[in-house]
Amino acid sequence: MLEKAGILNGEEVEKLVAELEHIISLAEADEFEIPPEQEDCHTAIENYLTEQLGDLGKKIHTARSRNDQVVTALRLYYRDHLDMLVDLAKEFQSVLESFQSQYGGVTVPGYTHTRKAMPSSIHLWSGAFLDSMQDNVLAVKNVQEMLDQSPLGTAAGYGVPLDIDRQFTADNLGFSRVQQNPIYVQNSRGKFEAQILNACNQVMYDLNRMASDLILFSLPELGVFDLPAEMCTGSSIMPQKKNPDVLELVRAKYHEILGLEFQIKSLPANLITGYHRDLQLTKEPVMRGLKATLDTLEVMALVVSKLQVDEQKAQKMMTEELYATERVYDLMKKGMPFREAYRKISEDYQ
Amino acid sequence: MLEKAGILNGEEVEKLVAELEHIISLAEADEFEIPPEQEDCHTAIENYLTEQLGDLGKKIHTARSRNDQVVTALRLYYRDHLDMLVDLAKEFQSVLESFQSQYGGVTVPGYTHTRKAMPSSIHLWSGAFLDSMQDNVLAVKNVQEMLDQSPLGTAAGYGVPLDIDRQFTADNLGFSRVQQNPIYVQNSRGKFEAQILNACNQVMYDLNRMASDLILFSLPELGVFDLPAEMCTGSSIMPQKKNPDVLELVRAKYHEILGLEFQIKSLPANLITGYHRDLQLTKEPVMRGLKATLDTLEVMALVVSKLQVDEQKAQKMMTEELYATERVYDLMKKGMPFREAYRKISEDYQ
Amino acid sequence: MLEKAGILNGEEVEKLVAELEHIISLAEADEFEIPPEQEDCHTAIENYLTEQLGDLGKKIHTARSRNDQVVTALRLYYRDHLDMLVDLAKEFQSVLESFQSQYGGVTVPGYTHTRKAMPSSIHLWSGAFLDSMQDNVLAVKNVQEMLDQSPLGTAAGYGVPLDIDRQFTADNLGFSRVQQNPIYVQNSRGKFEAQILNACNQVMYDLNRMASDLILFSLPELGVFDLPAEMCTGSSIMPQKKNPDVLELVRAKYHEILGLEFQIKSLPANLITGYHRDLQLTKEPVMRGLKATLDTLEVMALVVSKLQVDEQKAQKMMTEELYATERVYDLMKKGMPFREAYRKISEDYQ
Amino acid sequence: MLEKAGILNGEEVEKLVAELEHIISLAEADEFEIPPEQEDCHTAIENYLTEQLGDLGKKIHTARSRNDQVVTALRLYYRDHLDMLVDLAKEFQSVLESFQSQYGGVTVPGYTHTRKAMPSSIHLWSGAFLDSMQDNVLAVKNVQEMLDQSPLGTAAGYGVPLDIDRQFTADNLGFSRVQQNPIYVQNSRGKFEAQILNACNQVMYDLNRMASDLILFSLPELGVFDLPAEMCTGSSIMPQKKNPDVLELVRAKYHEILGLEFQIKSLPANLITGYHRDLQLTKEPVMRGLKATLDTLEVMALVVSKLQVDEQKAQKMMTEELYATERVYDLMKKGMPFREAYRKISEDYQ
Repeated sequence: MLEKAGILNGEEVEKLVAELEHIISLAEADEFEIPPEQEDCHTAIENYLTEQLGDLGKKIHTARSRNDQVVTALRLYYRDHLDMLVDLAKEFQSVLESFQSQYGGVTVPGYTHTRKAMPSSIHLWSGAFLDSMQDNVLAVKNVQEMLDQSPLGTAAGYGVPLDIDRQFTADNLGFSRVQQNPIYVQNSRGKFEAQILNACNQVMYDLNRMASDLILFSLPELGVFDLPAEMCTGSSIMPQKKNPDVLELVRAKYHEILGLEFQIKSLPANLITGYHRDLQLTKEPVMRGLKATLDTLEVMALVVSKLQVDEQKAQKMMTEELYATERVYDLMKKGMPFREAYRKISEDYQ
Repeated sequence: MLEKAGILNGEEVEKLVAELEHIISLAEADEFEIPPEQEDCHTAIENYLTEQLGDLGKKIHTARSRNDQVVTALRLYYRDHLDMLVDLAKEFQSVLESFQSQYGGVTVPGYTHTRKAMPSSIHLWSGAFLDSMQDNVLAVKNVQEMLDQSPLGTAAGYGVPLDIDRQFTADNLGFSRVQQNPIYVQNSRGKFEAQILNACNQVMYDLNRMASDLILFSLPELGVFDLPAEMCTGSSIMPQKKNPDVLELVRAKYHEILGLEFQIKSLPANLITGYHRDLQLTKEPVMRGLKATLDTLEVMALVVSKLQVDEQKAQKMMTEELYATERVYDLMKKGMPFREAYRKISEDYQ
Repeated sequence: MLEKAGILNGEEVEKLVAELEHIISLAEADEFEIPPEQEDCHTAIENYLTEQLGDLGKKIHTARSRNDQVVTALRLYYRDHLDMLVDLAKEFQSVLESFQSQYGGVTVPGYTHTRKAMPSSIHLWSGAFLDSMQDNVLAVKNVQEMLDQSPLGTAAGYGVPLDIDRQFTADNLGFSRVQQNPIYVQNSRGKFEAQILNACNQVMYDLNRMASDLILFSLPELGVFDLPAEMCTGSSIMPQKKNPDVLELVRAKYHEILGLEFQIKSLPANLITGYHRDLQLTKEPVMRGLKATLDTLEVMALVVSKLQVDEQKAQKMMTEELYATERVYDLMKKGMPFREAYRKISEDYQ
Repeated sequence: MLEKAGILNGEEVEKLVAELEHIISLAEADEFEIPPEQEDCHTAIENYLTEQLGDLGKKIHTARSRNDQVVTALRLYYRDHLDMLVDLAKEFQSVLESFQSQYGGVTVPGYTHTRKAMPSSIHLWSGAFLDSMQDNVLAVKNVQEMLDQSPLGTAAGYGVPLDIDRQFTADNLGFSRVQQNPIYVQNSRGKFEAQILNACNQVMYDLNRMASDLILFSLPELGVFDLPAEMCTGSSIMPQKKNPDVLELVRAKYHEILGLEFQIKSLPANLITGYHRDLQLTKEPVMRGLKATLDTLEVMALVVSKLQVDEQKAQKMMTEELYATERVYDLMKKGMPFREAYRKISEDYQ
């Protein structure tokens, strides 16, 4: 782009690209150092290029601020991680589908209010999470679409006094459009991150629910599920224990995402327009949140891949009160109005 | 649908529809009472129909539970209110566009870190909110699409032991698809509400930011904006005061939405699958949140419609340090590498 | 105080007090109106006094701002409600003690990780809540002590240009000390309210836990508790159901407090010193939070007063694995090192 | 204690203590390893002792569970860190007092609603934070008192089948009392941590406010404060910039504490009594929160120690409208009722 804008000539570009590629190979070999006094990779890269190429290195920061470089780098990072999230969500779905086709036929009690309600099945139970994960995938993609706008060239929030081709850099970086308004770029810091965590939150919400189900319904007294032994741990004092630690950590991780989301949604409120250093503290939460979501999704796929349903225990749990509603409908099919049929069957449970 | 399923005959349907329409007209005249012991409209309607039509009324609850009736009613309510939100957001944009075309040409200082940074303009400032609101509208529509699935017929979360045509009721209620899995219907309670509040949150985030800008930059010392006098209030002790109370309330309302969103996101966590009465407490927050968002958006449109920019004050605020970056680029255009030009101009500000 | 400061003479004070007492009796009879245009009771009172007493009424606002009047009124309100909270907490404890003395002797399984762990008892279980409520009471009293400082006389946050006797009004209002610094009075708005909600949160946390226990351990499959029938509700579709709705609402109410607390903790952040109208929106949350806590505590006392323990079911739940740790200690008492005894007993549970 | 209980004899105790002291010196030299498969220090210590002392090492876990060891270790950790918090808060106060005695006499405008209100002073402004920090110190001490109860001996939440002297270990560990009820020990996990973060929150709330004040009132246009140059940073594109980055990070850190507090308050809700692995995820947040609070308090003490007030700029900001209330009171002192005097002066500001 700087060549197109007449800032660099072809030869200069070649030299710079060669050195930038060298930096990449250094970085891949973990040999590109960023000393604390250089603060971040952007300064370190500029300094390195200046060391290697003299005045040419000093031109590299033209038409940008560290600010829009950071935002651009973050958007690329988010894009990659949201792609991973979609992939993992689909993998989770495929593991769950296998589980469903193996055990779907097993009838289990359906609960409401933590009490037996009506007959349900493993097919229905796993299907609920499949459908919900499908909506989650759409939600993640919606966030990706919102983020898919190039901030490069907006500098510190008020553009640069130079004629630059923002569409060109957007195309090269794989963004589908340019985020035209430089002030909006700044105002979207924190806001976009909040949307990422909200999408993570939806995924984690489902995993929290599933973990809660598995913890309770693998209890010997209520047993339907057999948890994989390698995902349970013992106790240092009680020799008989097999605790569902992995699922408890999955359950708890939801709240970490929630805390991070709240931090990010509270942090930039009441501030005026324009970059504030406060916003730097939105980076760690979103990175932590994405990592936690990806990790938890992976762990949960592993759990489901090893999960078993104990058909005999499930059958034993199918006690008669689960069929009370069916008895109402049987009467109704014989002509009794619903409410009357309901009252009649109720009498058996007074 | 009950006719199609053979539960009711044509004559019965006609009688029921006539009475239901009568209930509507009673309700519109505020004459349809729901006594506390009937708990909600669903029981009140059934009781009324039974009073009027005897046994026929007792058939009305066939193929449903109060549970899926409530979820269905809520979805319709959400649809209406999200439509209103989209409409109001567009109205706000159109008011802001008028403001932009009137004052867009005024140059104002752009701030970063709450300090003067580079030249900006009213055009840029208002454009940032226009673009952001456009993304908000898309986000609201994405939530609407997620919610646009009919839960009717899933009963208490485990379906009904009866052959019913869920597509038929979905079509009649204007849903674009059926939410097939009855357990998912229950698991989406709280989850869908959270997505509504998250969408409200995005709108309110922008209004919080705009209010913060208007409060600070209408300060006589930093004046650019003239707030409409009718939106300012006095003090009971200080006779000189003109306080931006309306904008402060707008700013504060963001945090109400935030509190409600986190209530809803925390409430259903750690619970197992299936309806719990806990979920009833997701209704008020989402209704309060929607109302607060709609009201605030309306107020803010009114503020913007009366907002003025004081060009003279704006001009006085355009002090020379705002042009320091331009001076760097001027040197650069004459051939000096960016970093060197930057250092040279820096010297003036030591 | 205004008499002491020489603003009013004795006769004037008598007239004003007589009228103020008249206002009280009007208010008690619900006959003292506050029209919207007067905004609040402070203006309404001043206007009424001016109507009745002419110029004398116009003197009433001397040495104060509506701001410190509001803060003072709120402090008195908080004091009363925190007193009620302490009283209700003690009442709850006394109901729980009765329950404990009736059923304390029943042995029940103790759970960890939602799995049977070691023998426990109703005595131990109820004792945990008694001790925790005791710590809650101390926490509420600590908040009361923090709030027990009179803000009256600090006006809008910068005092009044008049020599007033703040200790005198503090004494008369029953405050144990004067909050000397007027800026601190303003900065404590939101902060003190947050501390009230944090104290409520502690109480509600315990009730959430107790409700969770009662919901699960009144499940027929895990039954220990018999819930009072009048606190359970049925289903509109399933005739057999007895749902623990009241306890589910208790459980859910915790999250309302949590949402309110975070609204209040987020709202004033990032603002500068001095009153902002934003702070008005801290009033409703704290009032709602106090009310919800008081109501829930009262409901829960009622639940406990009617709660029964089913000794036979409890006994049936005392399966042998609960005694595994005891077997370890038996071996140990015979001389085997703990870790070895643990390993030996473990073998029975592979 | 194990000696008193007859589990160990004097000679055994001596050997164990010698090895434990050796572990301490290894740890201090960073040479005591805890391999991942040993999970934590408790297992590592037991294993080490067993390697060194054979069967004697296997006795060490008698009368405890890893659970109460962890809780005990955490309480000691919290005690130390809350002590540090009290110390740092006092140090901060002392730095602020120095600042107050140096600049207290400077008159500055007092703001309400982000608008000039009445005359204030540096004395008043700094005094507000001094008083508030004093209340914070009391709040921290109240939390310490709540936590000052020894959990050791409660094992996994249901005690140990052995006669042990819990008072003895409590005394030796410096706890003022024993937390008698073992179930309460478990129920207080998360709850006590939440109280620590709430106390941190109060401190950080004040620092957030102070940072907000310093950021705005060091703005050249509103200047009263001169920020220490070494705590400001430049911009990569704008050569004139001196940004208050340190203060912005202080301001933002409040929200990290808030997020962590919310995580901890949401995580254990809706769970039943008894330890769950979920609770392990309360450790990191409280440790992060304590560290962030201590660090921020230290940074802010440094800022205040170098903070300067520009008397001339302050004087220039003392414009006449700040004295409007004084003019009201002057009229009043001459006999005009307050409200009339207020109206008269108001006329000048229409």
